[in-house]
Amino acid sequence: MKVIIVGGTGTIGKAVVKELSKRHTIIIAAYQHGDIRVDITDNQSIEKMFQSAGKVDAVISTTGKLHFGEFSQMTTENFQLGLNSKLMGQVNLVLKGLPYMNDAGSFTLTSGILSHDPIRFGCSASMVNAALDGFVKGAAIEMPRGIRINVVSPTILEESLPDYGDFFHGFVPVSAAKVALAFSKSVDGLQTGQVYNVS
Amino acid sequence: MKVIIVGGTGTIGKAVVKELSKRHTIIIAAYQHGDIRVDITDNQSIEKMFQSAGKVDAVISTTGKLHFGEFSQMTTENFQLGLNSKLMGQVNLVLKGLPYMNDAGSFTLTSGILSHDPIRFGCSASMVNAALDGFVKGAAIEMPRGIRINVVSPTILEESLPDYGDFFHGFVPVSAAKVALAFSKSVDGLQTGQVYNVS
Repeated sequence: MKVIIVGGTGTIGKAVVKELSKRHTIIIAAYQHGDIRVDITDNQSIEKMFQSAGKVDAVISTTGKLHFGEFSQMTTENFQLGLNSKLMGQVNLVLKGLPYMNDAGSFTLTSGILSHDPIRFGCSASMVNAALDGFVKGAAIEMPRGIRINVVSPTILEESLPDYGDFFHGFVPVSAAKVALAFSKSVDGLQTGQVYNVS
Repeated sequence: MKVIIVGGTGTIGKAVVKELSKRHTIIIAAYQHGDIRVDITDNQSIEKMFQSAGKVDAVISTTGKLHFGEFSQMTTENFQLGLNSKLMGQVNLVLKGLPYMNDAGSFTLTSGILSHDPIRFGCSASMVNAALDGFVKGAAIEMPRGIRINVVSPTILEESLPDYGDFFHGFVPVSAAKVALAFSKSVDGLQTGQVYNVS
């Protein structure tokens, strides 16, 4: 299969590339490096990425930003960052990617554990991750041409503990390699409309 | 208690007013009628509403728009309607309402069953409703001064069957009066961070 991995240079993305490159042709798209540059907050950039990649059998997204901060100090603009990047950035990958997706292909997005297991400073993440899980359930039943869509919802990564561990005390970390298996299940399997909790 | 009901002129809102006015002082806010006019997509309008209402013990929201349509035809802008109105409109009621909320007061928002039980044309609703459920879980644990927040997630209303019944075949409808009880549980009880599924 021909698989494009948006965010393929990140911690999860690199693990997904490692897992899937064993048996698939991989195109890495990212903001700064990779085979194709893309800014997922810009629909024209997304369109250019797909024009450059051509038809694909799977689109994986392991990217997206959002704001972490104290809830009572947060502004509309703080929430908008996550809505524009991690949420609509990934949604727009699906909307713009549909014409480039081969029949029976798959989209796999990334949400996260905070949707249902919240932490201090994580309200925007709870909102955006839950939105992605809901989006995938809604989109899956309307996908044309046998195209599937799932989302991987990981807990804190072992690899991210040095940077973010202080916000996730008490959470059991998982390796990026384990998270990558959920992307493989989505791409290589036949399920759709699933939220793969990796925790 | 002094309770402001944003969207108090709608189908759910009227039932909530009927239930809560038995024992509370009610202020109805709405886009067109009610005691105070408010446009929840406009932060200045929200601020003016709270200035006019003064300190309150409970803020209820039973309002918000979103786009219904075929998924493969939907655009970024179609999704943006729900993000700006039903999602961030309600989130901004919380952000702007916090300074006007008395200690131990409560916010109660409205999401909907499509977060986890999707229908054709309902992808934006699935996304926005799930986002609201996630937001409430994240916000609840960071609320200052003993303030609580919950969300009511109703299925299709008996009263809405003439207009929307054709999109919800097979769903068991509930009365607006039954949905109103969940708002009472949120306002009159002590729970927080809950998603009250009424279905």
